[in-house]
Amino acid sequence: MKVVIIGGVAGGMSAATRLRRLDEDAEIIVFDKGPYVSFANCGLPFYLSGEISEHADLVVQTPEKLQQRFNLDVRPNHEVTRILPDSHEVVVRYAGQLTHESYDRLILAPGARPIMPDLPGIADAKNIYALRSIPDLDQIMTGIQAESTQHVLVVGGGFIGLEVAENLVLSGLKVTVVEQAPHVLPPLDTEMAAFVEAELARNGVRVITGQAVASFEDAGKVAILADGTRLTTDLTIIAVGVRPASQLAKAAGLRLGFHGGIVVDKQYQTSVPDIYAVGDAIVVQQQVTNDPTLIPLASPANRQGRQVADNIAGLPHPNRGSLGTAIVRAFKLTAAATGLSEYQAQQAGLTYRVVHVRGGSHAGYFPGSTPLTLKLVFNPDSGEIYGAQGVGERGVDKRIDVLATAIKGDLTIDDLPELELTYAPPFGSAKDPVNMLGYVAMNVAEGLSKTIQWHQLPAALAAGRQVLDVRDVDELADGEFPQARNIPLNQLRQRLTELNPAQPYVVSCFSGQRSYIAERLLRQHGFDVVNLDGAFALYHAVRPQDLIYQR
Amino acid sequence: MKVVIIGGVAGGMSAATRLRRLDEDAEIIVFDKGPYVSFANCGLPFYLSGEISEHADLVVQTPEKLQQRFNLDVRPNHEVTRILPDSHEVVVRYAGQLTHESYDRLILAPGARPIMPDLPGIADAKNIYALRSIPDLDQIMTGIQAESTQHVLVVGGGFIGLEVAENLVLSGLKVTVVEQAPHVLPPLDTEMAAFVEAELARNGVRVITGQAVASFEDAGKVAILADGTRLTTDLTIIAVGVRPASQLAKAAGLRLGFHGGIVVDKQYQTSVPDIYAVGDAIVVQQQVTNDPTLIPLASPANRQGRQVADNIAGLPHPNRGSLGTAIVRAFKLTAAATGLSEYQAQQAGLTYRVVHVRGGSHAGYFPGSTPLTLKLVFNPDSGEIYGAQGVGERGVDKRIDVLATAIKGDLTIDDLPELELTYAPPFGSAKDPVNMLGYVAMNVAEGLSKTIQWHQLPAALAAGRQVLDVRDVDELADGEFPQARNIPLNQLRQRLTELNPAQPYVVSCFSGQRSYIAERLLRQHGFDVVNLDGAFALYHAVRPQDLIYQR
Ligand SMILES: Cc1cc2nc3c(=O)[nH]c(=O)nc-3n(C[C@H](O)[C@H](O)[C@H](O)COP(=O)(O)OP(=O)(O)OC[C@H]3O[C@@H](n4cnc5c(N)ncnc54)[C@H](O)[C@@H]3O)c2cc1C
Ligand SMILES: Cc1cc2nc3c(=O)[nH]c(=O)nc-3n(C[C@H](O)[C@H](O)[C@H](O)COP(=O)(O)OP(=O)(O)OC[C@H]3O[C@@H](n4cnc5c(N)ncnc54)[C@H](O)[C@@H]3O)c2cc1C
Ligand SMILES: CC(C)(COP(=O)(O)OP(=O)(O)OC[C@H]1O[C@@H](n2cnc3c(N)ncnc32)[C@H](O)[C@@H]1OP(=O)(O)O)[C@@H](O)C(=O)NCCC(=O)NCCS
Ligand SMILES: CC(C)(COP(=O)(O)OP(=O)(O)OC[C@H]1O[C@@H](n2cnc3c(N)ncnc32)[C@H](O)[C@@H]1OP(=O)(O)O)[C@@H](O)C(=O)NCCC(=O)NCCS
Repeated sequence: MKVVIIGGVAGGMSAATRLRRLDEDAEIIVFDKGPYVSFANCGLPFYLSGEISEHADLVVQTPEKLQQRFNLDVRPNHEVTRILPDSHEVVVRYAGQLTHESYDRLILAPGARPIMPDLPGIADAKNIYALRSIPDLDQIMTGIQAESTQHVLVVGGGFIGLEVAENLVLSGLKVTVVEQAPHVLPPLDTEMAAFVEAELARNGVRVITGQAVASFEDAGKVAILADGTRLTTDLTIIAVGVRPASQLAKAAGLRLGFHGGIVVDKQYQTSVPDIYAVGDAIVVQQQVTNDPTLIPLASPANRQGRQVADNIAGLPHPNRGSLGTAIVRAFKLTAAATGLSEYQAQQAGLTYRVVHVRGGSHAGYFPGSTPLTLKLVFNPDSGEIYGAQGVGERGVDKRIDVLATAIKGDLTIDDLPELELTYAPPFGSAKDPVNMLGYVAMNVAEGLSKTIQWHQLPAALAAGRQVLDVRDVDELADGEFPQARNIPLNQLRQRLTELNPAQPYVVSCFSGQRSYIAERLLRQHGFDVVNLDGAFALYHAVRPQDLIYQR
Repeated sequence: MKVVIIGGVAGGMSAATRLRRLDEDAEIIVFDKGPYVSFANCGLPFYLSGEISEHADLVVQTPEKLQQRFNLDVRPNHEVTRILPDSHEVVVRYAGQLTHESYDRLILAPGARPIMPDLPGIADAKNIYALRSIPDLDQIMTGIQAESTQHVLVVGGGFIGLEVAENLVLSGLKVTVVEQAPHVLPPLDTEMAAFVEAELARNGVRVITGQAVASFEDAGKVAILADGTRLTTDLTIIAVGVRPASQLAKAAGLRLGFHGGIVVDKQYQTSVPDIYAVGDAIVVQQQVTNDPTLIPLASPANRQGRQVADNIAGLPHPNRGSLGTAIVRAFKLTAAATGLSEYQAQQAGLTYRVVHVRGGSHAGYFPGSTPLTLKLVFNPDSGEIYGAQGVGERGVDKRIDVLATAIKGDLTIDDLPELELTYAPPFGSAKDPVNMLGYVAMNVAEGLSKTIQWHQLPAALAAGRQVLDVRDVDELADGEFPQARNIPLNQLRQRLTELNPAQPYVVSCFSGQRSYIAERLLRQHGFDVVNLDGAFALYHAVRPQDLIYQR
């Protein structure tokens, strides 16, 4: 059997190596148009700062080693320019020459290509780049090492944009990030992204959200935003997302689907016989909604590469869809998400509720614990978990991994408290923040707690509710809700008579935990009360300007 | 409703606070025989070294605050000496006086008590302690701060014993650990515990395994082991495990079960009406085997405390059993386990297989990645995951948490590769070690790889197999298997003719990954070959003395 693979990185090379392990006799040829195969795409941003200091560390395998170890015929700098399904051939360009290569099975793993918006002035610019490959990186490195380069503009505040921004700051440059969406990291919801924006600002990154770059002038030295703002930039990196690299597939008549992704069945077979596809280029099924979507991430690409080899070798392992779990480090902060965001749940028309929990990376009484904020999106009727997000200095990866696993295992909110996670003081808490998410969500689902979200507070106040802040007096110095009433939780039961039974309240504390206790107390004493989910800490992160700081 | 609770820490106080949130009107009295309630048992060992430096940090809540916030009547230094089920009363001793207190519902949360072996000479000793409470800690602190205290003996190398040993070393003392089992941390299997023993030795702890202390002499200044070894000790801490504190329950006629634990139904009701029990004192159902067992850990105790309150308040949340997830830091190393060990699976008569995987705490090409070793115990037919263990410097907690969640979600080995865990270079790998466990286990289950375990190697060699070591030549300096043949993996395909087709081989490399690739290659070329699971790295950890180091 002769198998030809287009694309020699995450999906393609994983397919090649696995296929060899399954079939010593197969002829396996891997074409990649770039000079490197099997490289660490995900590491590229970290070379900008020198955090990954060795260029060679970006390359996981070389054609020579892949030949020796796996008997693979790996051909870098070979671009496949056409697929000829009828004759089972591909047309390959190498050093300007076109040749034909036949196949029994063809695997497409061409990845994605960065979206380059077709803006006025962009064609004349010499200083605008995207980062997808090692040659891209090398060009950018040359650009940022030029003495004249001081200000860098990053267009797009998604995961890659922020990694690039962070690493450019670490390398000493002044960085501006422009994001068209209302907040950075669109896979996160507004209030969670707010923590990241604050951390970016603390580290000197200028973040402009809700604004697109409209055009470039002066050979790319000036970027003009939709509202007319002019930004000077010595170098610009465009990171506004990727599109499936499906041009070849399209030209060959393969069926494309969602946003131009290649449509495959559960065995990764495309609509054309003997042609398979994996990785960033394919349409996958979102595991929560079952909707077709694109999830251009390394974990699914690697898995799919192995699975397509299995299927070709006659060891069926179907594609079971993707969840989409992503993480980014932004200076001292980590932000991560899995499954659906609140926004996505809303767009999908799902019945959902959300809760926020603030916990410690490990037991608070043990040194080094840092706070983290988790958000859960769930169905209050069935308990199904739709998605989760986390931000914090430490331990965010762990909690999102647990929640991604919980979603995979169809665990419900009722199961989260049952998770027995590793607990000793240096590692966790007897009630881990993930357990706590379950408790808080159950209280909402079971009607023990009625909550409002941060964005609902203004309407609640307008409708006549008053904020009852149950923090201790010394905590008020951090900021207060306008017109709030303060009674510290530990005095509340004694001072109930000070409250007006006819007045509806919204209780708040720092994290939402004490105010929940106050809520339970007040409701049982006949008050009309709701808890401000996430309370002061969350509100302060997302709408600091609405709070009062004089005292 | 009047609810009396015996024991005011993890289980008892969680029940009290939750009950108050559900029922503002209940009368809730919490008795604890000790001077502190709501303290961080799990933090106690870390005070020995000063890593937790404030005594007050060990106390999570005080009776005063619990009164103010939760209207709880918390009575420290009150020991319940009898339960009178017929009259619905308990007898309480306080300051030498006995009084009666009635109850509508009684919750037993008395925890466990340290096992104190009844050894000759122990009664005459003044320097032998167990660590369960703050008064215990205070006594030990006085003991170790005495200038004459240089050598400390820790009897028992379980989780608490090792935490104590580590913290005593950190505080500058010479520590010997004696463990009766063949290795420390009996919930781990031999080869995983071996990593911990090496780390203890590296840090100057003398570890004596497979030996019990038989007696003490000289007022506790000399401990004599079963084999006659005499150990000098200025202070001895006994940490050989705990027993349910079920004396009161027994005296009141409550049904006891496994190892003296209190038997409860799914609502935590004991065999006697209106009496409930939670925490270390009760028998629970092991979630994997469904067998009755004891799991004296903080996470289940806290959860059970909340659930018993729910059940009493008419909000049924049944006890769904416990898994038993534990973790310990031993100097730079972390060791953790969830579910069943191999030994336990064997004892339970289960059909099982095991695999070991060595991975990085995060992507190897990103700075700061450290190795970790994971072990999976699973059913090769159904794919059911029975348990997992991990050791390494970083990221062990995360992987074991994911695996504990996977077990809870009834995920199988086939699901592990499907887990989409947070991946960016500072946090993980495109194929996380947990995904890798799944791949390796699937290869075993699907017959693609035939493995032998480290302890099976001598028999395999005796039966005529030869070790074929596929590491690179420069790696052999770390040690070699006797009579091994070396052909580096990358040369194997070219040098096949050097091998004897009639000779059965066992292939090894460093981690088992390259030798697996060699195994696949060799088998397809007709060789009789098995892979040494975990390979050199694991063998070197558990049986370094069997290897050859001259070269
Ligand atoms: C800067 C950056 C950071 C990232 N960070 C993360 C991260 O932290 N976490 C994460 O999960 N994912 C991350 N990703 C995404 C991840 O790298 C991709 O999801 C993954 O590499 C996709 O694998 P693939 O095999 O589908 O495509 P790729 O790995 O992109 O490989 C496709 C290959 O196909 C070749 N090719 C395309 N067309 C042809 C043709 N016609 N002929 C020959 N060769 C062709 C290309 O040259 C390319 O080398 C990052 C990506 C980038 C660019
Ligand atoms: C040193 C140490 C370290 C530990 N480390 C960890 C760890 O890292 N991770 C982990 O998960 N678990 C750990 N544990 C175990 C954990 O602390 C227990 O599982 C948990 O506290 C059990 O909760 P409980 O409510 O059942 O009992 P406890 O928390 O022990 O509370 C029982 C209370 O009942 C009181 N009491 C008993 N009898 C009577 C009576 N007759 N009258 C009045 N009061 C009575 C006792 O004084 C005690 O205060 C550790 C335990 C110790 C001792
Ligand atoms: C590295 C690459 C060539 C794939 O190589 P690979 O050999 O298939 O994959 P790995 O090196 O991860 O090894 C996995 C194999 O080793 C096996 N293995 C791992 N540890 C093992 C152990 N201890 N014992 C036995 N087998 C083991 C696994 O089972 C798996 O084999 P299988 O697929 O036959 O089951 C390909 O993924 C690649 O090019 N990656 C770089 C690019 C990339 O991923 N970019 C995106 C992220 S930055
Ligand atoms: C602390 C202790 C008194 C229990 O107090 P508690 O108030 O029940 O528990 P916590 O402080 O963990 O808070 C959990 C409650 O806050 C709620 N909560 C937490 N964060 C919240 C948030 N952001 N919004 C709303 N509610 C929140 C939870 O839902 C839960 O309430 P519920 O049980 O009614 O659902 C008890 O566990 C104890 O004594 N612990 C110390 C001893 C110990 O655990 N030792 C062993 C380990 S060292």
